[in-house]
Amino acid sequence: MPELPQVPLTLEGSNVLHQIFRFDWTAWKELPLDERTAISEEFSGLLARWEGGNTEPNGHPNQSALFSQIGHKGDLILIHFRDSLEDLNRVELELAQTRLYPFLQQTSSYLSVVELGLYESSEKIYAQLAEKGLEPGTPEWNAGAGEATARTFASLSSRLFPAIPPAKYLCFYPMDRKRGEQVNWYTEPMADRRAMMHEHGLIGRRYADHVRQIITGSIGLDDWEWGVDLFADDPIVFKKLIYEMRFDKVSAVYASFGQFFLSVRVHASNVNQWFDGTLA
Amino acid sequence: MPELPQVPLTLEGSNVLHQIFRFDWTAWKELPLDERTAISEEFSGLLARWEGGNTEPNGHPNQSALFSQIGHKGDLILIHFRDSLEDLNRVELELAQTRLYPFLQQTSSYLSVVELGLYESSEKIYAQLAEKGLEPGTPEWNAGAGEATARTFASLSSRLFPAIPPAKYLCFYPMDRKRGEQVNWYTEPMADRRAMMHEHGLIGRRYADHVRQIITGSIGLDDWEWGVDLFADDPIVFKKLIYEMRFDKVSAVYASFGQFFLSVRVHASNVNQWFDGTLA
Amino acid sequence: MPELPQVPLTLEGSNVLHQIFRFDWTAWKELPLDERTAISEEFSGLLARWEGGNTEPNGHPNQSALFSQIGHKGDLILIHFRDSLEDLNRVELELAQTRLYPFLQQTSSYLSVVELGLYESSEKIYAQLAEKGLEPGTPEWNAGAGEATARTFASLSSRLFPAIPPAKYLCFYPMDRKRGEQVNWYTEPMADRRAMMHEHGLIGRRYADHVRQIITGSIGLDDWEWGVDLFADDPIVFKKLIYEMRFDKVSAVYASFGQFFLSVRVHASNVNQWFDGTLA
Amino acid sequence: MPELPQVPLTLEGSNVLHQIFRFDWTAWKELPLDERTAISEEFSGLLARWEGGNTEPNGHPNQSALFSQIGHKGDLILIHFRDSLEDLNRVELELAQTRLYPFLQQTSSYLSVVELGLYESSEKIYAQLAEKGLEPGTPEWNAGAGEATARTFASLSSRLFPAIPPAKYLCFYPMDRKRGEQVNWYTEPMADRRAMMHEHGLIGRRYADHVRQIITGSIGLDDWEWGVDLFADDPIVFKKLIYEMRFDKVSAVYASFGQFFLSVRVHASNVNQWFDGTLA
Amino acid sequence: MPELPQVPLTLEGSNVLHQIFRFDWTAWKELPLDERTAISEEFSGLLARWEGGNTEPNGHPNQSALFSQIGHKGDLILIHFRDSLEDLNRVELELAQTRLYPFLQQTSSYLSVVELGLYESSEKIYAQLAEKGLEPGTPEWNAGAGEATARTFASLSSRLFPAIPPAKYLCFYPMDRKRGEQVNWYTEPMADRRAMMHEHGLIGRRYADHVRQIITGSIGLDDWEWGVDLFADDPIVFKKLIYEMRFDKVSAVYASFGQFFLSVRVHASNVNQWFDGTLA
Repeated sequence: MPELPQVPLTLEGSNVLHQIFRFDWTAWKELPLDERTAISEEFSGLLARWEGGNTEPNGHPNQSALFSQIGHKGDLILIHFRDSLEDLNRVELELAQTRLYPFLQQTSSYLSVVELGLYESSEKIYAQLAEKGLEPGTPEWNAGAGEATARTFASLSSRLFPAIPPAKYLCFYPMDRKRGEQVNWYTEPMADRRAMMHEHGLIGRRYADHVRQIITGSIGLDDWEWGVDLFADDPIVFKKLIYEMRFDKVSAVYASFGQFFLSVRVHASNVNQWFDGTLA
Repeated sequence: MPELPQVPLTLEGSNVLHQIFRFDWTAWKELPLDERTAISEEFSGLLARWEGGNTEPNGHPNQSALFSQIGHKGDLILIHFRDSLEDLNRVELELAQTRLYPFLQQTSSYLSVVELGLYESSEKIYAQLAEKGLEPGTPEWNAGAGEATARTFASLSSRLFPAIPPAKYLCFYPMDRKRGEQVNWYTEPMADRRAMMHEHGLIGRRYADHVRQIITGSIGLDDWEWGVDLFADDPIVFKKLIYEMRFDKVSAVYASFGQFFLSVRVHASNVNQWFDGTLA
Repeated sequence: MPELPQVPLTLEGSNVLHQIFRFDWTAWKELPLDERTAISEEFSGLLARWEGGNTEPNGHPNQSALFSQIGHKGDLILIHFRDSLEDLNRVELELAQTRLYPFLQQTSSYLSVVELGLYESSEKIYAQLAEKGLEPGTPEWNAGAGEATARTFASLSSRLFPAIPPAKYLCFYPMDRKRGEQVNWYTEPMADRRAMMHEHGLIGRRYADHVRQIITGSIGLDDWEWGVDLFADDPIVFKKLIYEMRFDKVSAVYASFGQFFLSVRVHASNVNQWFDGTLA
Repeated sequence: MPELPQVPLTLEGSNVLHQIFRFDWTAWKELPLDERTAISEEFSGLLARWEGGNTEPNGHPNQSALFSQIGHKGDLILIHFRDSLEDLNRVELELAQTRLYPFLQQTSSYLSVVELGLYESSEKIYAQLAEKGLEPGTPEWNAGAGEATARTFASLSSRLFPAIPPAKYLCFYPMDRKRGEQVNWYTEPMADRRAMMHEHGLIGRRYADHVRQIITGSIGLDDWEWGVDLFADDPIVFKKLIYEMRFDKVSAVYASFGQFFLSVRVHASNVNQWFDGTLA
Repeated sequence: MPELPQVPLTLEGSNVLHQIFRFDWTAWKELPLDERTAISEEFSGLLARWEGGNTEPNGHPNQSALFSQIGHKGDLILIHFRDSLEDLNRVELELAQTRLYPFLQQTSSYLSVVELGLYESSEKIYAQLAEKGLEPGTPEWNAGAGEATARTFASLSSRLFPAIPPAKYLCFYPMDRKRGEQVNWYTEPMADRRAMMHEHGLIGRRYADHVRQIITGSIGLDDWEWGVDLFADDPIVFKKLIYEMRFDKVSAVYASFGQFFLSVRVHASNVNQWFDGTLA
């Protein structure tokens, strides 16, 4: 029997862009009130359209959402879920044409795609293909693997192309798996990685009533390997969940974290209040 | 008996935001004197209100304080203690509406929540729950742990929702516990971590007459794991305390430090003098 | 027999410059429409000329291409392939004279040269030269090695001086081979490095129908050792390819990656639309 | 006999602030000559006063000095020695009120306090206290240690509260002692640290005729643990001294260095020439 | 026989400053043509004088040279060789007074001094002094070492105080020797370091016909330990040379590199063309 692949199968869904902006309050407040109102109305109209999404032609939500960020890393976060990277670029260009744009200074961004890692089923699928006498990497093998994941893909559509959860708070951070000199995720055997991911998943599941999680992959797309979006109404749950996970093996030993962005949802219907300096 | 959790119980209190600003002296001094006075009065009024705090509805102080920072990292620091992250975001938005805001350039910030780590009692509580035959992670276990900490929470209210100490100097810095390839806090056994934290605490206790310390947790909220605020009238005590701690095991081996911010308290009643270029 | 060199032979072709720019939409939109049109026309004319390239005097394409970048790292990427570094500097200076230039803020760049690493043939050539009794590093040895690679050079001309692939998406990133304290690519025996590069190449070959790859070397020219340009019509292939490679030994253990830049091709014929805020 | 403390005794003297500025030559040269002269006179008057210092009430010099920095990190450095951190903050505020200030852009700073580490005597003092049967950390122990260092403090007053040496060149850099995974200064036994510091000191002593050195501690005050100021008339001596020290064990193995700032003294009497673009 | 010093003798020559600038093409092109011409003439006159150098009073060239840099790190590089650090500061101040200066934004710089490391002869000299019964570090030892190097110094004058090579391309980068936890150049025995430097030198010598190299030391002067300037007419030689060296032990194991700056020489006689946007 040939050596089985060490790379887990993944499924990819919506393309996701996080945009983080500083807002130029000083220039904004120099505008006459009626101009501010007009610009704010224009933007809330655009946001309302983006919140509604566009389920054509395939039923995917294709939504965006706005958040008010705490701290100096930015004042506003926009997250966009779209069917293609090209569509995300179109969103950027559309935003740049608004009258609000001159007041936004983009300080950061993150580009990724919703990803479901199939650690649990990959080994089974690989074993089945090998039992059929197929050779990894051959067209036959790839066809067999494709067939096996296609079924999963269809059944996971709502997780691959998610609507944006309605929770009050968003916690976003990118992360890597470590490739150190002694500690290297990518040289660990697949079975060990699967077991660690399983333990990790169990913790997440215990918090499932309080936190909604969307994992996106960004290898080849941005500077970290994954992005994590957590949505909750009580932000202390972010701290409890991530602290508990920090002690599980896959995080304690193999996780490397980027910056954390904490923000509060602002619906299109409340945008005007935000530009007046109040949170609904 | 099942394996006991490795994660210590924590209690969370006030949400805390540190804002660090450069002040634009050049633009400020181009203003006519009466405008400067008016803006300064407006801001000292706001600060006086924030210093007074808001103990409604639950008796928590909900205060803010202003400090004059030494060095190029910033000129002014504002620290805010509030009942929710949303309230902290409201404070940011309120400040942004003041006439002072165009003269403030935010260079840094830190978001965290007052945290009391219960290393000493966690093991006892876990052992008691296990003796009752409960399984870690089950609803029964969680209910039992919640009950045990609820009593502690009530008794520690003044430490969880502290008033801002009246000392002259503030030393703030964020920190991590290391997750290196050989040295990894998060894979150390709970009992060893507890013993190290105990030794660490003994040093702190010897300085308790001279330094008031507030520890905040920021896992999931900001880029480091903890924030440390030290308040003292003699700043040499900061140096003595932190130097001595640097030799205890938990700091020598497992601590990783961010930037240090040193500043001098400016009360609302002295704000006008500061904007005139003098320290009261 | 003398010790054979540990340094693989390389062939160098086109000199390559990547330029990454932020575009100042705010200043741009303050221009009257006819001025924007004139500037856009001027630039699309220049780009059309650069796209066409200049095959004089030696048949090399000498092309440039424009891409619309996703995310805050930049809005536009220009890549230039030229016969000399001096010509690349001329391109920079020519661009700086356009009326578009004041709206471009260069945030990053990368300078490199198309490189073909001859791991497979180097060992054979070295063995042949040694069998002839030549001493590594002597003029005779160098002449022999030069002769052997000259034949390869001629046969690889289209890969050394490539036309820019017409694919829709570009993924660019720089990378290093690690020189850590235990893990050091440059102290590994040549035969081991060749074997690892061979395994790495096999993965690339399986994706060859979907991704076109151009490797450039930048030792002595820029801050990383290599640049990688991937061209594809389906960007998910970038993720699949790079994720799979991350598990091969040469990447898992020895690769260190810089920033990733993801962008969408904009042809000269569509430049005007981009400056109007739409993607063709 | 109880375990003796591993923390060496230190003495603290003057509080020190380094301020590094870029000078805006372009804006400066747009001023009419008479205005430049007036501003320059105002500043040289302030500097003359600061150079003179203020020995009230305790005889400490309390001086400042100006230097012309080489390279892009800054154009001017001001160093201030004062009796308190508060006084350093007052110096900052006073400078900010001058007419020169709008032409200064602060790029860096460093806050620290003159420190004499008593590695040699700490062990002796600790042994004596232990022989008296005192317990480390008790009030009696602290009183005994305080008494022992008080005598030293008085005798070292001129080193703890130094006048600024009159040399032509200043070399400033901050540094840490490493806390690596295998190499950790803070877990080395006190006797070994003392021996390494002794060897280090011997090299310094051989250069004493040519370099004057002031060590300041910044644990708890700024981002590195120590600051080093070297004063010499021949700057090659900086290079010779630091290169030789780099091979002693405490530097080779345990030192981590920050940025180096090299500058030329500018006395108040020559300030006008500097603002005219010449070095006296 | 006493332990011999582990520090190799070095000779120091010209003080060297690299200045890297962005050029503000936008502001430049807003100037009327005649003003641009006048400013360009003024600067080319200054550069012509600096290129000519000043061999008074000791015969050292004391030259400067200008280069057109490729990529975003800068547009222009000036390198200056002078007899003292003070003279380099004077050059900076003189440049700041020109009418060109407002169009230059300094993004980086490097301060160092031409250094010849005497690894080969140090051990011999140390052995001879020890045989005479002298003790390392004593005045007699230092006098003996000084006498031995003085002869070398005189014979190496043209390498210590070099004229700027006339080649077309410049490659500049700073570097360190590693002081890692297991891999530490500064704790390697002198004889091993000498052997590694010898091997390193042999590679350089094979490229001597095509590359002219100037090594400068910057310990105590700037943020890296050494600066390397390579001059060549064919820039591919930079890549070939540095790639080959990366496999020799001293580079593979002990070298740590900073940024690489690649640029094309612009003589005073061609400065006007550069400011018109063309490379001669």
